[in-house]
Amino acid sequence: MKFFNCDYNEGAYPPILKKMMDTNLCQSIGYGEDEYCEEARNMIRGLCDAKDGDVHFLVGGTQTNLTVISAALRPHQGVISPETGHINVHETGAIEATGHKVLTVKTPDGLLTADMVEKVCHDHFTDEAFEHMVMPGMVYISSPSELGTVYSRQALTDLRAVCDKYDLMLYMDGARLGYGMAARENDIDLPFLYNVCDAFYIGGTKQGAIMGEALVIRNAALKKDFRYMIKQKGGMFAKGRMLGIQFLELFRDGAYFKLAEHADRLADDIRGALAAKGYPFAVQSGTNQIFVILPDEATAKLKEKYVLSDSGRYDDTHSVQRICTSWATNPADVKELIADIESL
Amino acid sequence: MKFFNCDYNEGAYPPILKKMMDTNLCQSIGYGEDEYCEEARNMIRGLCDAKDGDVHFLVGGTQTNLTVISAALRPHQGVISPETGHINVHETGAIEATGHKVLTVKTPDGLLTADMVEKVCHDHFTDEAFEHMVMPGMVYISSPSELGTVYSRQALTDLRAVCDKYDLMLYMDGARLGYGMAARENDIDLPFLYNVCDAFYIGGTKQGAIMGEALVIRNAALKKDFRYMIKQKGGMFAKGRMLGIQFLELFRDGAYFKLAEHADRLADDIRGALAAKGYPFAVQSGTNQIFVILPDEATAKLKEKYVLSDSGRYDDTHSVQRICTSWATNPADVKELIADIESL
Amino acid sequence: MKFFNCDYNEGAYPPILKKMMDTNLCQSIGYGEDEYCEEARNMIRGLCDAKDGDVHFLVGGTQTNLTVISAALRPHQGVISPETGHINVHETGAIEATGHKVLTVKTPDGLLTADMVEKVCHDHFTDEAFEHMVMPGMVYISSPSELGTVYSRQALTDLRAVCDKYDLMLYMDGARLGYGMAARENDIDLPFLYNVCDAFYIGGTKQGAIMGEALVIRNAALKKDFRYMIKQKGGMFAKGRMLGIQFLELFRDGAYFKLAEHADRLADDIRGALAAKGYPFAVQSGTNQIFVILPDEATAKLKEKYVLSDSGRYDDTHSVQRICTSWATNPADVKELIADIESL
Amino acid sequence: MKFFNCDYNEGAYPPILKKMMDTNLCQSIGYGEDEYCEEARNMIRGLCDAKDGDVHFLVGGTQTNLTVISAALRPHQGVISPETGHINVHETGAIEATGHKVLTVKTPDGLLTADMVEKVCHDHFTDEAFEHMVMPGMVYISSPSELGTVYSRQALTDLRAVCDKYDLMLYMDGARLGYGMAARENDIDLPFLYNVCDAFYIGGTKQGAIMGEALVIRNAALKKDFRYMIKQKGGMFAKGRMLGIQFLELFRDGAYFKLAEHADRLADDIRGALAAKGYPFAVQSGTNQIFVILPDEATAKLKEKYVLSDSGRYDDTHSVQRICTSWATNPADVKELIADIESL
Repeated sequence: MKFFNCDYNEGAYPPILKKMMDTNLCQSIGYGEDEYCEEARNMIRGLCDAKDGDVHFLVGGTQTNLTVISAALRPHQGVISPETGHINVHETGAIEATGHKVLTVKTPDGLLTADMVEKVCHDHFTDEAFEHMVMPGMVYISSPSELGTVYSRQALTDLRAVCDKYDLMLYMDGARLGYGMAARENDIDLPFLYNVCDAFYIGGTKQGAIMGEALVIRNAALKKDFRYMIKQKGGMFAKGRMLGIQFLELFRDGAYFKLAEHADRLADDIRGALAAKGYPFAVQSGTNQIFVILPDEATAKLKEKYVLSDSGRYDDTHSVQRICTSWATNPADVKELIADIESL
Repeated sequence: MKFFNCDYNEGAYPPILKKMMDTNLCQSIGYGEDEYCEEARNMIRGLCDAKDGDVHFLVGGTQTNLTVISAALRPHQGVISPETGHINVHETGAIEATGHKVLTVKTPDGLLTADMVEKVCHDHFTDEAFEHMVMPGMVYISSPSELGTVYSRQALTDLRAVCDKYDLMLYMDGARLGYGMAARENDIDLPFLYNVCDAFYIGGTKQGAIMGEALVIRNAALKKDFRYMIKQKGGMFAKGRMLGIQFLELFRDGAYFKLAEHADRLADDIRGALAAKGYPFAVQSGTNQIFVILPDEATAKLKEKYVLSDSGRYDDTHSVQRICTSWATNPADVKELIADIESL
Repeated sequence: MKFFNCDYNEGAYPPILKKMMDTNLCQSIGYGEDEYCEEARNMIRGLCDAKDGDVHFLVGGTQTNLTVISAALRPHQGVISPETGHINVHETGAIEATGHKVLTVKTPDGLLTADMVEKVCHDHFTDEAFEHMVMPGMVYISSPSELGTVYSRQALTDLRAVCDKYDLMLYMDGARLGYGMAARENDIDLPFLYNVCDAFYIGGTKQGAIMGEALVIRNAALKKDFRYMIKQKGGMFAKGRMLGIQFLELFRDGAYFKLAEHADRLADDIRGALAAKGYPFAVQSGTNQIFVILPDEATAKLKEKYVLSDSGRYDDTHSVQRICTSWATNPADVKELIADIESL
Repeated sequence: MKFFNCDYNEGAYPPILKKMMDTNLCQSIGYGEDEYCEEARNMIRGLCDAKDGDVHFLVGGTQTNLTVISAALRPHQGVISPETGHINVHETGAIEATGHKVLTVKTPDGLLTADMVEKVCHDHFTDEAFEHMVMPGMVYISSPSELGTVYSRQALTDLRAVCDKYDLMLYMDGARLGYGMAARENDIDLPFLYNVCDAFYIGGTKQGAIMGEALVIRNAALKKDFRYMIKQKGGMFAKGRMLGIQFLELFRDGAYFKLAEHADRLADDIRGALAAKGYPFAVQSGTNQIFVILPDEATAKLKEKYVLSDSGRYDDTHSVQRICTSWATNPADVKELIADIESL
């Protein structure tokens, strides 16, 4: 079976393992205070043009999200999220387990707009029983979203404005950030992101690391004592350098972006083949995730050779299938998949 | 101004205060272990035909809800609630603050059906990523609901069946239970409720008590160590007898039900007057809460003399107004309100 | 049996019940926004010389403590408390249930000193693994303490200084505040307390109210959005005026302090009788709680007529007994108890 | 500088990295459901003679502890721990952050005895205010403890008995389990451990893994839905096979135990040298951690070449220093350290 169901089926970008081997018996102090982590933090600060930014390395996305959100909010505050947001759907209530409500908004495409946030806040603060309701304290977005869509520079600028108006933090989950930035429609870069968000993370797990997310914080209140938060939530990695080494290798010579581009262009090819066959998409996206509406017999046929990810029924005879490429996807496998799509 | 906005504008059913005065300087032990509480518990067990039931007196509804729900659920479980449920809307995230997600379902009338619960559970347990999602562990309903509607015997029987199928507890918030049982369409009684729910509470605050809710628990797992839970959540009332005395007086000679009937019949009269004028209702209900759609000029006119409760815009020229009666509503005030409605 | 085991065996200071009756059928808005609460808040602000202070009425002490402490701390912070502190011993882990560790300090008499707090903070901030440990964020004290002892003006001034040094809030649990202020050794007053603490509460439950604690907040960060916190923790009292009325009556003409003085002087009398018989005290205190070391046969004899509170074994033949007076204690009962002590 | 301060200064046992490289571009499903994890689970079940045991791989110790403990306890329960327990001292309140109090017991050597647990439980259940106090629900031990000491077969058998008597779970933190089992005084094995505990974990991070702890659960109630718990707490590792591979390599041909023996024997050598010089030990231990009381000038001299871990002042002129060996310690470095100790 060939796996096109998600973007973490393979191991790691090979230079990472090589570097781990080369440095394996060196001794260094733990918990991210070693020289590899320090170098990786500086590299990331450089890429983000963020000389005052704090950079922390955590193991996974759920852990990063729950640590940031619980650190940011007071007890009565909740976090606004698209209904499809990872924190709302696929983290087993991790945010609620830290005491906070996820305030959900329906979206057509997984993306929050400034107007949606404005409405939630306006409704809250003008309700006569407002103190009996959860106060919005943060906006959670993911880009690419769980539907593969990305935020534009304008959309983020508008979100920033409404966040400022209502004193909300803006936090972006970048589990697949590189895949977003390699999309043809992308118009943002890291320095812009750093300035528009209070915090965001650059995902490693889905883009070539064994594990690891690089959290970047601009907001001073959120920076304060953040390592305590990481430790309390179980995210303080003992052999910290193993995270630092990974980000060093991922960003060396722009590898991170090239790996993402590899995935996105292969996804473009698959998308082209699906479109040519007339299969509609559940959502338009230009990243490594494709959400296509397939007739059941086509799905069944493809699943003889490929692992895809079921994303719900569309109607009695169609379902939505997620097809993912990754940094490690073999172009020959894509060629074969395309041929199989064409002959459906 | 005359208050028709809610059902706790007045003090207490007068025999309660009289009894408090009569027993004021008696000495008794605290925390609900006194003889008044014991007598009130026995009285309630008798009314519910619940000789093995546990009865606890708490101060308010939010406190009761958060104590029961957090006692019932394991960390990964959530509670299914109508989107309009009090725990979802008007408790400032009290349930989430204890670590649990509220799993919401849209309803037309504030009432969950067995089919709705079936769908939530079926979708959960058949999802391939089910362990990444919050597991349903309890069903929260309120009767009357926040929209004044009530559950029928059949609806509750059906909910029980789906709860048994999926190993869910069924918990009913009875903040206005008496007003529900005095509705013309009511077909349930306390023994039925006791048997169909794992736990429910009989509301005092909104039906003549200074404060107090009588929680009745049938489920053995939930009974276990429940007084620890009450204490931990800040709900263990020091001078416990003050709660016991209130329920003793409320249930003496069926006063609780007569007070509720008083409110519901007056509400029926107001409903009749509104209907006669052709004002439509946002929800059909037969309890003490009326949700009527009024043109803005009518609302403005009424608000010169009466306090009503805004319940949202209906369209550009109409809003939904909640009009409440209570155990203490003066029939003369209702007469006056009806006359004013007629002359709108 | 005569109850000397605690200070909430009786009902309420009679003018409270009278006022409740007199105003019973008036209508007012809920949740503490009525005119009685407003008047009571103003009265308390006046007594504390605290024109910018926020005053909130809550139902009980555990609820007040957990609401204040969880509102004040960030997730990684804990609250320093004497090992004997109510929050550490007798609240079923209410503070931990909101996510925070109680950092305990052994004390000889239930009172924290500035040196003790200094040591906890110094040890924390100089530990190389400080981020792996809970950061002190608040100091919790009670005066009178659970052992009946009180803080002096100097002790509180010193605590304030160490709190300022380490950016800690200082919070005082005043469940029995009046009994402390009526002690012969007392040298503090309400305006001093207001200025030295970030927040404190004036206890009603143990000093003549049916229930109720008046929380006074000076710290601006803690004031912010505090009513949300009360609601979330289940402490927002629906018929709020019932709390306001109680504090109005308690403070009318200084009744609160006179009631406390009544209790303390009767306790002084009992203490005198015990001392005259040569019984030693476990702790020296001048408030309404006496902790006396009694031989077992003396305890047994007294318990034939009186309910006392066991406070642990002292040695094989002695135990510590708590003897409490209250605002409602009958002088004739005290006379009888003293006679019985003398004839032991 | 040579590091003797802790046991995670180096990378990973080399066959782990080799195997990661060899399998790097294979595709497998995520979240621990791959074939490597399955094989590793079976291997561990075999070693523990635990055919019904559940095995889960988590990233780190704090995460494992907080996930197990919060899964095991109801809200009103706490976990009994030695005062020196990792969960009490060095996890930034992670347990409290999930809502539970750590009930601490002073010990001379980091080890809980059955008598200590008996006393905590007896005191709790015989206290008249027991419902106002946190109920013991679990016993947490670590072996080796944070002081390097280990539990004997008899001590664990006795703890099991008291846990059964009071319906407590017994959970063992085995962050350094191998180092304990390789100690000369050790008399336990994995099948015994499996049967005596409700759950325990076999530490990888400190014994040659990049990261990873293998949690073994025998208790059926704790097994239930445990993967939800892991996900909610942020511990569900996406590229799960990377954990499975590590444990496969660690246990292949008993490597785990040989690596531990390597460390313990080198520690024995250092201990011998310290004893020969007459330096006393703060605690007697036979594992890879040595807690020695050194005069300040000796410490200063050693710290010119070696990194040791300060473990507190002993008196004005002495401190306690922790000296650790590990699976990776170079015997030549130990030889050099011993020579330097001898010439102090």
